[in-house]
Amino acid sequence: MTVTITAFESSPDRGRGLARDMRVRWALEEVGLPYAVRLLSFAAMKEPAHLALHPFGQIPTYEEGNLALFESGAIVLHIAERHAGLLPDDADARARAIGWMFAALNTLEPPIVECTMAQLFEQDKPWYRDRQTMLDDRVHVRLRELSAHLGEAEWLDGGFSAADLLMITVLRRLERSGLLELYRNLTDYIARGEARPAYQRAFAAQLAVFESSQVARG
Amino acid sequence: MTVTITAFESSPDRGRGLARDMRVRWALEEVGLPYAVRLLSFAAMKEPAHLALHPFGQIPTYEEGNLALFESGAIVLHIAERHAGLLPDDADARARAIGWMFAALNTLEPPIVECTMAQLFEQDKPWYRDRQTMLDDRVHVRLRELSAHLGEAEWLDGGFSAADLLMITVLRRLERSGLLELYRNLTDYIARGEARPAYQRAFAAQLAVFESSQVARG
Repeated sequence: MTVTITAFESSPDRGRGLARDMRVRWALEEVGLPYAVRLLSFAAMKEPAHLALHPFGQIPTYEEGNLALFESGAIVLHIAERHAGLLPDDADARARAIGWMFAALNTLEPPIVECTMAQLFEQDKPWYRDRQTMLDDRVHVRLRELSAHLGEAEWLDGGFSAADLLMITVLRRLERSGLLELYRNLTDYIARGEARPAYQRAFAAQLAVFESSQVARG
Repeated sequence: MTVTITAFESSPDRGRGLARDMRVRWALEEVGLPYAVRLLSFAAMKEPAHLALHPFGQIPTYEEGNLALFESGAIVLHIAERHAGLLPDDADARARAIGWMFAALNTLEPPIVECTMAQLFEQDKPWYRDRQTMLDDRVHVRLRELSAHLGEAEWLDGGFSAADLLMITVLRRLERSGLLELYRNLTDYIARGEARPAYQRAFAAQLAVFESSQVARG
């Protein structure tokens, strides 16, 4: 059954692989599942055809036969549960890995998104400087705890899993913030993820989409 | 095998059931699983014994034999996968329900937490009023989309599921914000969740903990 995902026609991150389709592409590459991509403009994301697939008008979505899913975390979990390579076989280890998937998206991602979005969109606001210190501090609290947990381990809990895949995509949002520099084990961890062949294929695929969009505009 | 969860010794919400142990208590009540609760002070949450269970020093945690989990979403999913009553049997419907669990925690909760936390902790900041308008608007975008999806349906996707359980606990954070009042179908939806006997038992149990903490102090 063919898998089709949606992605930005022209990603606002300019092909840096920070859009959430990157997670799904990476997961599909890890398990070796081919997929088609339907590209959407910002306008098309808010049209009824797409809202029927994704009530919040975002990307990515995932279609496979009669099944349509949204939410990148849920899509990655769906892929991981049905194909070998992204979750451990042992039931307890599997539950813990799923726990780390939620931790990536619920404990790490919200303060990181808030911090990086303010850097992008609130620089002109009178409150920017005072508030950013507070947001940076909140991110540091989580990075310090994550760094303490990871220690010298290669991955979050045993072998590479969907939890590492999500955590690394979340941490990559900080790559230009300067906040990661204090945590050498976290930058090494991100680099280990980025070195995986599946990551590199996924990254190249999303970059190619962005580059075509620029040619089309040019 | 006995299940043990952790919760605040004295919840900062004063027993309104907004702390994240409420989700786990509710899920356990829905499936009829008895559980023990270990109460933690704020200081104990940051001590090594608890950090070994929860690297981010929060509540709730979940222990069952040799398995220890953290992240309320992951704990609810773990319970839902192992006991009847919180996820549909059909594989596609089950994947969609899990998708809505992620939507509750990743698409709805972050802007709602940001908005309600600013109301609580940034009222004295010079930027409060200007910024709050922006945060309220972001929440309204999501509530409007959720309300449009729900329409006249009773639950998010078919019968009551763990997705409704999480979504309702997320929406309840807005109950004193005034933001829900425009969405009659969402307030009705919350009321349907709160009317469930399992919800009421879970709510009473967490309230009893808060009330004892006040007697102990008094």
